[in-house]
Amino acid sequence: MNKLALKGNIVYAKDRDKLEIHEDSYMFVEDGKLVAISKTLDKSYKDYDLIDHSGKLIIPGFVDLHLHAPQYPNRGLGLDKELIPWLDTYTFPEESKYGDMEYSKKVFIRLINELWRLGTTRAVVFASVHKESAELLLDMFMESGLGAYVGKVNMDRNTAPEITEDTRKSIEETEEILKKYRDKSSLVKPIITPRFAPTCTEELMGALGDLALEYDAAVQSHLNENKDEVIWVEELFPESKNYASVYDQYNLFGQTKTVMAHCIYNTDEEIELMAKNGVYAAHCPYSNYNLSSGIMPVRKFLDKGVAVGLASDISGGNSLSMMSIIGGTVQASKMKWLDTDKELKPLSFSEAFYLATKGGGSFFGKVGSFEEGYEFDALVIDDGDLADIKDLTIEERIQKVIYIGDDRNIVERYVRGEKIEKPF
Amino acid sequence: MNKLALKGNIVYAKDRDKLEIHEDSYMFVEDGKLVAISKTLDKSYKDYDLIDHSGKLIIPGFVDLHLHAPQYPNRGLGLDKELIPWLDTYTFPEESKYGDMEYSKKVFIRLINELWRLGTTRAVVFASVHKESAELLLDMFMESGLGAYVGKVNMDRNTAPEITEDTRKSIEETEEILKKYRDKSSLVKPIITPRFAPTCTEELMGALGDLALEYDAAVQSHLNENKDEVIWVEELFPESKNYASVYDQYNLFGQTKTVMAHCIYNTDEEIELMAKNGVYAAHCPYSNYNLSSGIMPVRKFLDKGVAVGLASDISGGNSLSMMSIIGGTVQASKMKWLDTDKELKPLSFSEAFYLATKGGGSFFGKVGSFEEGYEFDALVIDDGDLADIKDLTIEERIQKVIYIGDDRNIVERYVRGEKIEKPF
Repeated sequence: MNKLALKGNIVYAKDRDKLEIHEDSYMFVEDGKLVAISKTLDKSYKDYDLIDHSGKLIIPGFVDLHLHAPQYPNRGLGLDKELIPWLDTYTFPEESKYGDMEYSKKVFIRLINELWRLGTTRAVVFASVHKESAELLLDMFMESGLGAYVGKVNMDRNTAPEITEDTRKSIEETEEILKKYRDKSSLVKPIITPRFAPTCTEELMGALGDLALEYDAAVQSHLNENKDEVIWVEELFPESKNYASVYDQYNLFGQTKTVMAHCIYNTDEEIELMAKNGVYAAHCPYSNYNLSSGIMPVRKFLDKGVAVGLASDISGGNSLSMMSIIGGTVQASKMKWLDTDKELKPLSFSEAFYLATKGGGSFFGKVGSFEEGYEFDALVIDDGDLADIKDLTIEERIQKVIYIGDDRNIVERYVRGEKIEKPF
Repeated sequence: MNKLALKGNIVYAKDRDKLEIHEDSYMFVEDGKLVAISKTLDKSYKDYDLIDHSGKLIIPGFVDLHLHAPQYPNRGLGLDKELIPWLDTYTFPEESKYGDMEYSKKVFIRLINELWRLGTTRAVVFASVHKESAELLLDMFMESGLGAYVGKVNMDRNTAPEITEDTRKSIEETEEILKKYRDKSSLVKPIITPRFAPTCTEELMGALGDLALEYDAAVQSHLNENKDEVIWVEELFPESKNYASVYDQYNLFGQTKTVMAHCIYNTDEEIELMAKNGVYAAHCPYSNYNLSSGIMPVRKFLDKGVAVGLASDISGGNSLSMMSIIGGTVQASKMKWLDTDKELKPLSFSEAFYLATKGGGSFFGKVGSFEEGYEFDALVIDDGDLADIKDLTIEERIQKVIYIGDDRNIVERYVRGEKIEKPF
């Protein structure tokens, strides 16, 4: 049995409203799960391996609830367009390259190494339409030790010809992946991934919903990102009440565990349906800036009881750093507060920290917090270069490192109690 | 005579609308000034020292047009408040510490090292009210080799008692600094710095305007950052037409070289006065997010012919990186575009790059571009870790490194033709 005791300044968010802080304390981990936090190391813990990080900060690993692996090479490029022309001009051409396994591997090595470097211990990931490439990505995440949901994209219309799938083949390949990977790893799982309603026929979505139910598989897609997209969905699905109900009618909206990216233009009815069905929202502030999409009214979703996490959404988003995205989330919420005539209160630091850890982590189960029974995903942070001028509280130190630090401050990463080294 | 030839991929913005790109070319520098760019190294340049950065990017150094040196220790802290309570709770208490020269030095070492690390080769800087500390900062910038305007802050009302100045003493000390430093260095200059209208009596502003004219000294202050502040100024100066005219009536608004930070809530009349008087606007997107101030309509200022530069505004701003602020500027302009019903066109990448180099650089003279006769401030960028997956154009490479790179990509820094090493 793997028994660890980590000593340091322990910080996590059990609830949104405040950070839990255990200064100079011990965390005890058995078989990857947290069993206790204590100020002292009494003899009942004498057979635990002690890792002493006295003076450093220990926080939960970050969770990125939405990103596109094959768009990694496009990061920082082509941010002069809105969603639909951006997809056509930059994204679909890049995604069409992933029939090439050598290219896939080259990209995925860099992506997974960078997720590791930035302290993202769990991620929910779009692959491309290519089955073999998606399987490679599943295999590579397993090898890395990081946790992930990885989805082969399904799309059979309204996209570039070279990545438009045959409907039957798309369904069959998806089922093959589900069969092959559903029990292969408890850390890395397949996820059903209709790209978004406009690129999926009703036949395809119907079959994917059936697969979700049959295999109790998770689902990810996009929802209400851009006004033109919302109008397009209305035209394509004239009989649906709204965008969310398109997914809902095909059992792709919370009938199994589901996450929807963006959710900027949800109606109140759509927000309430997400809360009712337990559908997660992945908030992607930098992507939403870059593609001129808008700002998601996160406060409204939280008030109505929707589960929310944060996400990079590369390469619509330029930054893969959840530290940076926590800051961007607070900032975006302040602009939303002004936009709404001070109706939607800005998110506090602890709220954004919660969303990047336990908020998104709960999509993976008991992940993203240091409560008893939680899987021990953690980052050890050395903020010595930031905290040496004046005396700071632990809470001030964690704010400072998130707002102005970077991956250089992360010195160790753990997933389920295992220390993870650079994967590739 | 110092004669340099630098080889590499040369990128700069002469105008806002496009980047000038000289692939695999030579730049010739004599006595700190650029004399020519050429594809070949002919024998007329045989007595130039060749520095070969083939394959790398060479761009102008960045210019930060507004930052507060004594707020450096507060970076990333206290971003849960709006301007006025933020000043009272976090900023004024920190700024009251700079009577202590040991503390001042400790902070300024870190600040100047970090500006250097991040590729900011010129900065326009607020010190605190403390004369000795401001002089230390002037001396330390001179020692560093970076270019700067540094201003001792003037404020004689409406602030914390320990940093409220006696009006006469504030004026006298300002004049002493002007006399002592105006001819000491051509790279580092004093600048007259009324904090902002609400903390300055009319007597103080009147005397500062007189000093500006007498010594032909530059001026910096704040303008229209926050709605409550604007209302406060209206109450304090009921006879002034608007906020800008308060400064204008005291010869602090373009009568000598002047820069005003923020400019979010300027009326059209105020924007036109800035254009007419040649007053610079320093756009501080991250600060304006963090303090819930709003988004400056930069496009409107550019259309009306106002000179605009970019700025970190630490510690209202959390990031001191101009690379990050270029990205933030484009992003903020996209949100402004949505806010104005698509009236104010978003800034392009080249526009934001221009603002961070030549836009702000022109406040220092012929700075921020690689045109003939310009002072040679430059950064050598190694983007090898970002550009190795697919073939990119030089323009794509520069976008990528600005949007997703960081200081680790900067391998050399030049100011006026001198290579600058880590200052302290």
